[in-house]
Amino acid sequence: MKIVAAKSILKFNDQLAAENRARFNALGLYVVNLVGSPGCGKTTLLEGLFEQLGSRIAPAVIEGDIAGQVDADRLKQRGIPVVQINTEGMCHLDANMIGVATSDEDYSHINLLVIENVGNLVCTSGYDLGEHLRIVVLSVAEGDDKLVKYPNIFQRSDALIITKTDLLSFCRFDVDRVRNDMQRLAPEAEIFEVSATRGDGLAEVADWLAARCTSAAPAASTD
Amino acid sequence: MKIVAAKSILKFNDQLAAENRARFNALGLYVVNLVGSPGCGKTTLLEGLFEQLGSRIAPAVIEGDIAGQVDADRLKQRGIPVVQINTEGMCHLDANMIGVATSDEDYSHINLLVIENVGNLVCTSGYDLGEHLRIVVLSVAEGDDKLVKYPNIFQRSDALIITKTDLLSFCRFDVDRVRNDMQRLAPEAEIFEVSATRGDGLAEVADWLAARCTSAAPAASTD
Repeated sequence: MKIVAAKSILKFNDQLAAENRARFNALGLYVVNLVGSPGCGKTTLLEGLFEQLGSRIAPAVIEGDIAGQVDADRLKQRGIPVVQINTEGMCHLDANMIGVATSDEDYSHINLLVIENVGNLVCTSGYDLGEHLRIVVLSVAEGDDKLVKYPNIFQRSDALIITKTDLLSFCRFDVDRVRNDMQRLAPEAEIFEVSATRGDGLAEVADWLAARCTSAAPAASTD
Repeated sequence: MKIVAAKSILKFNDQLAAENRARFNALGLYVVNLVGSPGCGKTTLLEGLFEQLGSRIAPAVIEGDIAGQVDADRLKQRGIPVVQINTEGMCHLDANMIGVATSDEDYSHINLLVIENVGNLVCTSGYDLGEHLRIVVLSVAEGDDKLVKYPNIFQRSDALIITKTDLLSFCRFDVDRVRNDMQRLAPEAEIFEVSATRGDGLAEVADWLAARCTSAAPAASTD
């Protein structure tokens, strides 16, 4: 009897992720895996960040959704190149999906590829997609106890962006508690506070991302 | 080679769920599976509902969490009997966990058992726990496009409770759009609008739940 352990499936995913990463490096493409709950504001954050980045960075997006293409349509309207992955019920993206989705795309003029993962604070945490940076988004409306309740995904992220800070007066959300919990779980992680609808904090994230993008991405293909 | 298909795992879950349901029926216990995104307000809703229900209904809760017991502590403080299930990374509860969690409990004086599932709008949709009623919670802060993006869970629910309506003035959320999408996905489902922090709409949900609870639960054990 052949026994397929979850561990070996994840190991296979890690191999594919490493292949993706090598290909992204060869292309000079900096890749971000953006994770968070449904409705935490990932797409609105991207809209704001791309506007802030202006001509400094040429972005492209992969949208991961159970069904539909609501977010892809929003970004396409802004002229952002988007590939839509419909998982048809699957709760997270994996490295194989990203490999297939990117294989035919022309990223020669793109610096930054953002993968907007399925809205899920649990299942997305275990799958390396080949990204250079994992950013977790937490909205003020979700409450300040989420790091204690869903520690894995925060522990495995390089940055936390607290969104919807315009709702701080209307929600029970202690920013200091969240900052402390994040420092405990991921001491190296950057922490930002943003209201994408108001524009607060976007410039800071955009500058940080642009710096990461240009310094970390190796020289583009020499052909 | 033995091939274990996801379908047969779900079939096994369904068998255990049927056993749970038969046991709950024999106990005269009405069981609700409460699902929704992380931070959509499930626990705050329960706190408000239990207060509204007063002495009409004797409730108990099972809390499903990846880690910790934040919500269980909140409910225990209010004198609600709580069993905590820590899934240790698992993204949803299943019928086996519920069977184990309830097997030793004395529910002889309880009418209503609410299972607060792991915060997850994807993975919780596929697992029958043996409940009589599945309620999905969607907060205004998550946005009005969630039914289109995560249709399965809404399709498989008996009621939708829209929470955090106190945030309606501050969020892009078209209640009519959500009502229309829900009617398309689950024509028989009840739809409620609630602000648990303000108390708006709680009485209506409590009355509806009390009526379901007393009419649907068969006579308690005759021993």
